[in-house]
Amino acid sequence: MNLLLIAIICGVIAVLYGVVTTMQVLKAPAGNERMRDIASAVQEGAQAYLARQYRTIAIVGVVVVALVYYFLGPVSAIGFLIGALLSGVTGFVGMNVSVRANVRTAEAARTSLQGGLTMAFRSGAITGMLVAGLGLLAISVFFYYLTAVAGHAPNDRVVVDALVALAFGASLISIFARLGGGIFTKAADVGADLVGKVEAGIPEDDPRNPATIADNVGDNVGDCAGMAADLFETYVVTLGVTMVSIALTVTGGDGEMLMKLMSLPLIIGGLCIVTSVIGTYMVRLGKGSIMGALYKGFWTSAVLGAVLAYPVTQYVLGDMNAVVASIPGVGDAEIQLTGMKLFYCMLIGLGLTGLLVWITEYYTGTNYRPVQSIAKASQTGHGTNVIQGLAISLESTALPTVAIVIAVIAAYQLAGVIGVAFGATSMLAMAGMVVALDAYGPVTDNAGGIAEMAGLEEDVRTRTDALDAVGNTTKAVTKGYAIGSAALAALVLFGAYTTDLREFFPDVAVDFSLSNPYVIVGLLLGALLPYSFGAFGMTAVGRAAGSVVEDVRQQFRDNPGIMEGTVRPNYGRTVDLVTKAAIREMILPSLLPVLTPIAVYFLITLVAGQASGFAALGALLLGVIVSGLFVAISMTSGGGAWDNAKKYIEDGNYGGKGSEAHKAAVTGDTVGDPYKDTAGPAVNPMIKITNIVALLLLAALAAAH
Amino acid sequence: MNLLLIAIICGVIAVLYGVVTTMQVLKAPAGNERMRDIASAVQEGAQAYLARQYRTIAIVGVVVVALVYYFLGPVSAIGFLIGALLSGVTGFVGMNVSVRANVRTAEAARTSLQGGLTMAFRSGAITGMLVAGLGLLAISVFFYYLTAVAGHAPNDRVVVDALVALAFGASLISIFARLGGGIFTKAADVGADLVGKVEAGIPEDDPRNPATIADNVGDNVGDCAGMAADLFETYVVTLGVTMVSIALTVTGGDGEMLMKLMSLPLIIGGLCIVTSVIGTYMVRLGKGSIMGALYKGFWTSAVLGAVLAYPVTQYVLGDMNAVVASIPGVGDAEIQLTGMKLFYCMLIGLGLTGLLVWITEYYTGTNYRPVQSIAKASQTGHGTNVIQGLAISLESTALPTVAIVIAVIAAYQLAGVIGVAFGATSMLAMAGMVVALDAYGPVTDNAGGIAEMAGLEEDVRTRTDALDAVGNTTKAVTKGYAIGSAALAALVLFGAYTTDLREFFPDVAVDFSLSNPYVIVGLLLGALLPYSFGAFGMTAVGRAAGSVVEDVRQQFRDNPGIMEGTVRPNYGRTVDLVTKAAIREMILPSLLPVLTPIAVYFLITLVAGQASGFAALGALLLGVIVSGLFVAISMTSGGGAWDNAKKYIEDGNYGGKGSEAHKAAVTGDTVGDPYKDTAGPAVNPMIKITNIVALLLLAALAAAH
Repeated sequence: MNLLLIAIICGVIAVLYGVVTTMQVLKAPAGNERMRDIASAVQEGAQAYLARQYRTIAIVGVVVVALVYYFLGPVSAIGFLIGALLSGVTGFVGMNVSVRANVRTAEAARTSLQGGLTMAFRSGAITGMLVAGLGLLAISVFFYYLTAVAGHAPNDRVVVDALVALAFGASLISIFARLGGGIFTKAADVGADLVGKVEAGIPEDDPRNPATIADNVGDNVGDCAGMAADLFETYVVTLGVTMVSIALTVTGGDGEMLMKLMSLPLIIGGLCIVTSVIGTYMVRLGKGSIMGALYKGFWTSAVLGAVLAYPVTQYVLGDMNAVVASIPGVGDAEIQLTGMKLFYCMLIGLGLTGLLVWITEYYTGTNYRPVQSIAKASQTGHGTNVIQGLAISLESTALPTVAIVIAVIAAYQLAGVIGVAFGATSMLAMAGMVVALDAYGPVTDNAGGIAEMAGLEEDVRTRTDALDAVGNTTKAVTKGYAIGSAALAALVLFGAYTTDLREFFPDVAVDFSLSNPYVIVGLLLGALLPYSFGAFGMTAVGRAAGSVVEDVRQQFRDNPGIMEGTVRPNYGRTVDLVTKAAIREMILPSLLPVLTPIAVYFLITLVAGQASGFAALGALLLGVIVSGLFVAISMTSGGGAWDNAKKYIEDGNYGGKGSEAHKAAVTGDTVGDPYKDTAGPAVNPMIKITNIVALLLLAALAAAH
Repeated sequence: MNLLLIAIICGVIAVLYGVVTTMQVLKAPAGNERMRDIASAVQEGAQAYLARQYRTIAIVGVVVVALVYYFLGPVSAIGFLIGALLSGVTGFVGMNVSVRANVRTAEAARTSLQGGLTMAFRSGAITGMLVAGLGLLAISVFFYYLTAVAGHAPNDRVVVDALVALAFGASLISIFARLGGGIFTKAADVGADLVGKVEAGIPEDDPRNPATIADNVGDNVGDCAGMAADLFETYVVTLGVTMVSIALTVTGGDGEMLMKLMSLPLIIGGLCIVTSVIGTYMVRLGKGSIMGALYKGFWTSAVLGAVLAYPVTQYVLGDMNAVVASIPGVGDAEIQLTGMKLFYCMLIGLGLTGLLVWITEYYTGTNYRPVQSIAKASQTGHGTNVIQGLAISLESTALPTVAIVIAVIAAYQLAGVIGVAFGATSMLAMAGMVVALDAYGPVTDNAGGIAEMAGLEEDVRTRTDALDAVGNTTKAVTKGYAIGSAALAALVLFGAYTTDLREFFPDVAVDFSLSNPYVIVGLLLGALLPYSFGAFGMTAVGRAAGSVVEDVRQQFRDNPGIMEGTVRPNYGRTVDLVTKAAIREMILPSLLPVLTPIAVYFLITLVAGQASGFAALGALLLGVIVSGLFVAISMTSGGGAWDNAKKYIEDGNYGGKGSEAHKAAVTGDTVGDPYKDTAGPAVNPMIKITNIVALLLLAALAAAH
């Protein structure tokens, strides 16, 4: 049997899981009329936003697909389209489930915490399985077609370019979706909080606040659709670049073995989809905490995946201890690959995933020193809350970096750059489960909003709040995990870049040594990208939130009945305003990582020649990860910690709700919002897209050569 | 005449300027008894702190000097001692002048703005000239002794090691002084603000606040003594490494020409001391603004320096167009050096200095968009103030990076790594003037405090406030300038590292290519350093400020007469508390950049062999600048912008003092405090010390080899 069929079957299983679970979710009761009303307002808003976002992206997409077609031919153009469309589908379906699960979660939480947890987690799991399943199907079906049907060799340039183009399609959509969704959700959230909680003195999600529906829409289009597009992209890029780097670097072994090696990442992806499906059924409260219940699912999938990776690898490669291929190492050394070595690298990837989850929980969970230190600092005011939050956000980068460095060294010692690639692949293989944990968050957040707006019993809100606090941590976990895998993938992408360079331009002697000043220039310009990008994101949220504040103030002024509770505010107007602002603000920063590599290459080539241009471009790819890793981790962990410090105080510590400490903690939470949900997470697709554009630029230059 | 004598004479001129101007300052009237009382409390506190700080550093210093003696011999040990002692002297004398000029500035401001400006600027100029003068004397006398008296060749290993050890001495003191002083000043400032302005509702510098004296002490030990030690270090390291890199890389030309080339940076330093002295006499108000008056001094020195650099270079090298030496370029290329090329590189350095000054003013001045946007965002609350401030801090890294990149490319194209070194040298040649602009700030800040506490007329405070607002910008300017020059110096230091490596370990093939995973590991670990270091700094300030708050609360509680104004608070107790806290908190983070390079080298060598260890260590040196540049600029510019956004509101915009916007702006200012005065500026000495430790490690390993 063609090995790829196994991967395709696993992908289909994931999609089937999604269909079946969606039916289960939709069958559940959707609450009373008031709840359904609110939910349908959220649905409408979310659909309207997503439709508009996709229309805008489509314009950019059409231009890009024409360029890809012109420079790289029809197969690559098709690859680009598949990546782009499926990325869109993942976000679209995930969001549509999420906006239906929210009200059902609120309804289920009326009965029990377990009921709410099950409903929210199922909804998350649908998105998770779609991300992994559609990602796996996209690559394996396309690769199957190219090799088994169209008859290309697996390392044929057509196949390599097509895989890169597929990744590009996914990346391009995801940067827009992450950023647009991120701006939407935080502009609405910050705006609603400022004008509601701070100015008007009404609680969060109070139905009198015209921005509440926009806030709830934001959870779905940002934390659900945007996140799903991001992780879909990470999945496709990581698996794709692993295959590409095998195709480009493996020298020993025959064509059949090459095909097996290239299929292995896909089959490992398929295996972990199956273990993730099993894991989803282990999410039960029992006697432990909510986080403990979610962990049961995660660890089941991870441990099962680790154990089964051994027989699966043996099945694919035949013999775990035989040398299956060789690849170049540092200098003139050759590294011999065996199944056993690759298996160890996969264990390293899974171990790193576990470590990153644990570290993120430490930095963002309410049970540990970091969050509690922020809460404590809130007692002395807004300023000390923010200072301590920034201190924690800076500090939170240390352990992940050390963990990543150790993983890179270990994987590289075992199997060179292919080892690092397999580490990244096994990390991403867990994407189904990790996304499930994350996508559960916005559903509970929405459920709480609906409970509040529909005036449900107090204890429903208490239950959804408990679920939501854990959501803050799981959201931070996904981001740390995505950016951690990006650090590994960046090494592999850089390897692909240098290999391509040697193949396309054998007569240009490019010096990647740190002694070359153009390498330093590239590193500095690359390092600048996450900073500029972050500045755009933060400014956009600030500006859009400002217009929300003005709109709400005007509604209150024009219509005093709103505050009295006699007139319904014009929710749609606020949603529409945020929609337009988010779309407008996402375009320029999204183009930054697409255009910068091209500009740097041409400018440096003009000044100092092509070899310097290639050196600067290559260094830029590493500069962006060297700085982006820290910017992203500090923002996402810091933001999560701020949010939970507020929750920790709301749980009755340091004076509880309404105290001065609480007010300071609300400020910290507001600051953390665009940090953790707009600027921080968008760094991951930004890094990927910079790298992929560089690879495509090389291919295009070679074609024009 | 020996060329070095010219440099020595210029150094003596700077010191004489310091002596004469100090006498002028001390002759001025020191105000009424109340003012003198307050000033003497500040003096005592500052001296007590500095004495304690130096005692603590001395313990570390004795251990280090023993290690230097053991590994590198007596000459290097003497070099280390000279660097360390003179760095201490610079800070000590500068601070002693500053604590006497503050009260005289307040007294002078009673008569006119020009009077206050002159007194404060003269005090700053004394510190500035001491930094440049003692720095120049340290290197040139030591170099003169080694070459002309002891008879070593200028590129003898003894000379090179001794120069590096001299730089190490200066760096080690400066990291402690910058960090200890930074923690002291901001702990006192933040603590005083929180408990005074926010809790007790009394104005800044109110004599009833027990923390006010500590706050004023902090300005002197942090912004004056700490800053002076930092810039002294930057001066010595930059000029020293330029000479070292000439000694190590120049291959063509004879010994006499080598001596001339190595003397050139010192003579340019001497030239700019003379033009800076002239510049100080141009600081007059006339019809323009305060900033304009300061700029007159700056531009006079810079333009005169640029014009005179041509004849000076010609005098030293004989013929501007003759090839005086050759050095290796990228690959096998050789770069021919001429006087003309070096002159152009100096112009590039001076131009970059001007650009960085201009960019920093744009980002931190009250007249431009960035500061005004933060003030505007304050209207919607604490959260949006902080969000916009963070956005500006991220954004502010872009233009400096681009300017630095262009300068590096241009200087490198002209004269390779030596060109970059001369660019950095000409930047630092302006140190006398730049430090003068900076050190003027704390004097005006103190003068304002004294005016407030002594109950002087309202318009005195208005004048000192106007002077102080400009001080925020000039303080940010120095930091941007120091870190910008660090980026250039880092390239030169890395060049020295690779050259040393080839010389000491010719049989170890070190691969600095970005394809080597140990290079990536080094880059990531280097990039981590400024983050961890920043986390330490921010946490230290938060913690120490917290204890200030508690101490002041207790004083208020135990002694109600304090708030009634009938009993004098125990200022000394608070000063003592902050002193102990600052000393305690500075030790661990200061050792981080000393120990990390050593740990990384040995750990990686253990795991992957010596070549990988050297590669990771080299990459670490660049990782720390690639990330440190952004961390430092974003923190110092962002902090300055926050501070001036508050001042902009206090000038009557967006509701003025006491409005909600003002409260939000105070929060932003508090957050910006440790950003701009503790964590951010300490990154510069941290980068240097990491690099120098690596160079010394190589020399020590070679000796043990």
